[in-house]
Amino acid sequence: MAMRMSTLFLRTLREDPADAELPGHKLLVRAGYVRRVAPGIYTWLPLGMKVRAKVEAIVREEMNAIGSQEVLFPALLPREPYEATNRWTEYGPNLFRLQDRRETDMLLGPTHEEMFCLAVKDMYSSYKDLPLSLYQIQTKYRDEARPRAGILRGREFVMKDSYSFDINSQGLQKSYDAHRDAYIKIFNRLGFEYVIVQADSGAMGGSASEEFLAVSEHGEDTFVRDDSGYAANVEAVEVPQAAPVEITAGPAHVEDTPDTPTIETLVNALNADHPRADGRAWTAADTLKNVIVMLAHPDGTRTPLAIGVPGDREVDAKRLETKVAPAEVEAFEEKDFKEYPMLAKGYIGPGVLGEEKASGIRYLLDPTIAQGSAWVTGADEHGKHVLDLVYGRDFTADGTIQAAEIREGDLGPNGKGLTLARGVEMGHIFQLGTKYAEALGLKVLDENGKLVTVTMGSYGVGVTRAVGMIAEDNLDELGLIWPREVAPADVHVVATGKDDAVFVKAAEIVAELEAKGLEVLYDDRVKVSPGVKFKDAELIGVPTILVLGRGLADGVVELKDRRSGDRREVAVDDAVAEVLREVGQHDVAQDA
Amino acid sequence: MAMRMSTLFLRTLREDPADAELPGHKLLVRAGYVRRVAPGIYTWLPLGMKVRAKVEAIVREEMNAIGSQEVLFPALLPREPYEATNRWTEYGPNLFRLQDRRETDMLLGPTHEEMFCLAVKDMYSSYKDLPLSLYQIQTKYRDEARPRAGILRGREFVMKDSYSFDINSQGLQKSYDAHRDAYIKIFNRLGFEYVIVQADSGAMGGSASEEFLAVSEHGEDTFVRDDSGYAANVEAVEVPQAAPVEITAGPAHVEDTPDTPTIETLVNALNADHPRADGRAWTAADTLKNVIVMLAHPDGTRTPLAIGVPGDREVDAKRLETKVAPAEVEAFEEKDFKEYPMLAKGYIGPGVLGEEKASGIRYLLDPTIAQGSAWVTGADEHGKHVLDLVYGRDFTADGTIQAAEIREGDLGPNGKGLTLARGVEMGHIFQLGTKYAEALGLKVLDENGKLVTVTMGSYGVGVTRAVGMIAEDNLDELGLIWPREVAPADVHVVATGKDDAVFVKAAEIVAELEAKGLEVLYDDRVKVSPGVKFKDAELIGVPTILVLGRGLADGVVELKDRRSGDRREVAVDDAVAEVLREVGQHDVAQDA
Repeated sequence: MAMRMSTLFLRTLREDPADAELPGHKLLVRAGYVRRVAPGIYTWLPLGMKVRAKVEAIVREEMNAIGSQEVLFPALLPREPYEATNRWTEYGPNLFRLQDRRETDMLLGPTHEEMFCLAVKDMYSSYKDLPLSLYQIQTKYRDEARPRAGILRGREFVMKDSYSFDINSQGLQKSYDAHRDAYIKIFNRLGFEYVIVQADSGAMGGSASEEFLAVSEHGEDTFVRDDSGYAANVEAVEVPQAAPVEITAGPAHVEDTPDTPTIETLVNALNADHPRADGRAWTAADTLKNVIVMLAHPDGTRTPLAIGVPGDREVDAKRLETKVAPAEVEAFEEKDFKEYPMLAKGYIGPGVLGEEKASGIRYLLDPTIAQGSAWVTGADEHGKHVLDLVYGRDFTADGTIQAAEIREGDLGPNGKGLTLARGVEMGHIFQLGTKYAEALGLKVLDENGKLVTVTMGSYGVGVTRAVGMIAEDNLDELGLIWPREVAPADVHVVATGKDDAVFVKAAEIVAELEAKGLEVLYDDRVKVSPGVKFKDAELIGVPTILVLGRGLADGVVELKDRRSGDRREVAVDDAVAEVLREVGQHDVAQDA
Repeated sequence: MAMRMSTLFLRTLREDPADAELPGHKLLVRAGYVRRVAPGIYTWLPLGMKVRAKVEAIVREEMNAIGSQEVLFPALLPREPYEATNRWTEYGPNLFRLQDRRETDMLLGPTHEEMFCLAVKDMYSSYKDLPLSLYQIQTKYRDEARPRAGILRGREFVMKDSYSFDINSQGLQKSYDAHRDAYIKIFNRLGFEYVIVQADSGAMGGSASEEFLAVSEHGEDTFVRDDSGYAANVEAVEVPQAAPVEITAGPAHVEDTPDTPTIETLVNALNADHPRADGRAWTAADTLKNVIVMLAHPDGTRTPLAIGVPGDREVDAKRLETKVAPAEVEAFEEKDFKEYPMLAKGYIGPGVLGEEKASGIRYLLDPTIAQGSAWVTGADEHGKHVLDLVYGRDFTADGTIQAAEIREGDLGPNGKGLTLARGVEMGHIFQLGTKYAEALGLKVLDENGKLVTVTMGSYGVGVTRAVGMIAEDNLDELGLIWPREVAPADVHVVATGKDDAVFVKAAEIVAELEAKGLEVLYDDRVKVSPGVKFKDAELIGVPTILVLGRGLADGVVELKDRRSGDRREVAVDDAVAEVLREVGQHDVAQDA
């Protein structure tokens, strides 16, 4: 049954909503696809439901095609399983927790590794039962600190999450590869540009993982790639360890550098008061910056961490977070300095940093700092720095950490220059290994009758997020432009003017199109001007628009392609065939 | 793609699960449709998902057919709208409440009148926008005190809820009637016996409402019907007010009745010590029992209520609850008696009851108590009763209340004898009127440019509950027997024995059946005995079972009808056609 604009629960807006940031999100609200109820929490209106259902259908089809079986776990879950894997604590404030009327602790599921693991444990007992792949398309909950970007990052959202169960790592690799292939098919069908990047899997406790990132300037994730095909989430980039260099510096010497607590003031002072013998100017890259942060651990304890990076780089908060997870990174505050009086703020150097040093603070260096290289760094005394301090000769550290910011042109692990771009995580595939199965005791008998721990994979696609991303990637200044496979309708029929004959003919054509199996959005409103109808059609973004109006008297109607903007007149008697051709052309193109 | 028993995520159980009470629920667990995660919280396994999806599809189809539009509101909701209608409080412990990371109060939606009302308020402004009907198929949450009966009464469950919006009550009546018709179609298709009963709509604040009850001995609801077509939930039955009778009793007189605090002891004492002049024995029906309860109001206050019923009847807790909602009924305890010293426990009479009397306690009488009738009742003094106390002459009350138990044979509002039965509420339709629209300010301009409050209806179908009810109503001692329209597959193909040829042929037939558009469950397990396979097939309950085995050498296979138990041999070459006929016969029968 055609959706009719006269009765459709929809009011298009001419103005951008105040609470929307991204262009696609603004259009989804203006065109009546979604409505905000609370931060990160949305209602789906009829047009939005159509798109969402199509995205779900694509995901379901490709999951079924790899033999994954659909199930549905509850969203409201008991605490115990998440306690067993420590995620009840590790999730911190991102987890929605509540108590029922008996004061039993419960949670709203953010992801379901524990529950799937327990179900398989309960039902399966032998290697003969494996491999197994299960999925669900489910509403999930995460109490994001900064829910923003509309349905791209909600607190209540739909995910397809799936889990694979194998007897060994070869099996896991196969399951992982099958999912990877399915995801490529899914994202090829959804209609936005994406890239597969190596991802950090630390927080999930697995071995290998990759992300499917939609390439988007609005993304919260940064990724890198080089021209050899390497691509990685910035959190996962492994900068090569710099090779040792020959020591050329003379002995280290402490100099007075009053009022130089920042890199900029230090460089200026060095150039003014301590020029180099060879005349080269000092730059920030010659200095070693020691950053102290506080790690807040899930158990409530806090420990400081010192990170040494070249003075021309910042520590990248996201890279650092993944390296120290599940601890969270907090600022090292004035009160913390009071507890560590050996730290001379603004002049902190390797002299006091390190587990064996005066502060006892763990000290990790950026891998670009080469053994044998010389640095200007803090002398652990106010107003003093030490020059020609050579790594390996004059100071040591407790290890290295991949936490410095990555810049365009930096060398990646393949020794090639990296380019940077931004993306939105749309899918994530993990080789979890045995972490969850071990915590929850999921073992089966192997061929020799021996109990072995099952190896798991975990895989997610953001379903509602995908709707948001398709919108961001398919729009122009007039409105949305849906890819055909996920469009809320195949064709938008617009009847204009006041002539009854137009509406009679339009209704006829709508009925014919529907008889051919097409989904039709029909603008049958009688007291609305053609201009408003055209604006609405462009805003809503159905890919093909058929306009009936004055031309009908001469036997012609107009066919518009929303994406190209092309419009052409066709004989009214050919209208149905022409629309079918527009829709079908695409299908043919897809199969090719 | 056929579901294959060799890989299907399923382990049938031979034993009943310990935590299941009802026969259908036991079978749903044993046959691997659902699994319990926590009280009232279930996981849906692959077979269960199939049935559930079919029930959802039926509901969706019939809702679309009446022009209702599908939307989806969040399950995680802000407190404010529910505060505005007072339901944040009224729901009491049935509501799951939580706080987000900013300590904002939120709830898990038990039903969505408020949210739909606000969405319409936000988008619509004129009578021209009405009527409107919206629905969602959504996971809902209610923290039931006694979650039991499996998916028949869960704490996380799926409901189709819909809401109608009209400019006036005639419009509401039309919307209500359309929903009623749609519900009849839905429940006719689902495959369990049901009855439409008048319901109490007090708690929802509306005017008219009806329930669709599945007739079931396991039901928690009692309903009545008479042979005139009248049917009502027991809470909604209006017992006729007894007509006044001529006073025949002499003056009231107080008698000593020591140690008679119960009706039984009283009747015995009366017959022993105070025989009636006409020789008739005293019975409980001659006594007036005054029951005191405490009402706990949502605002935390408590007030007592006295109810006078014939001594041979109890007060029906459920009937009483609906009459006093949103207050909850609690026991009148010893400490309460201490606050009302004029109440002589066991001997309480109308002498002290009533808002104008010594206790000040509101006093309501059962409507079967006729003006002019004489009673034995408490004399408000320990060990004493008053006889020949005539209602209207010797005592009065503050009104009547429909709270006494209803018994088989009682006269209903049509003056006919009632029969009682039990049922499970599967659907509920309400004429809400303007209660919610008023609380939330949903007004539109009418034809004369005047703002009028919109009139709402609210309608629900328990989707997951329906799956449970279909199971309860379609089973035998061997297992489930799904109605075709909701069966997890059209046909269950069972290959038995060790002969490869059987499995080859079975796979061929499965492929042919699928090519014809049928859904197939294929038992392709090689190391499982025929006996186990037959038991599993009967337990799972697909309506048509096709068995390939030794007969194949002679060119025959066996076709079983799960419901009738009929089995017949058919030529293997006719197998596909015969299965299609079985499935198709049903379709034809349905259309007839």
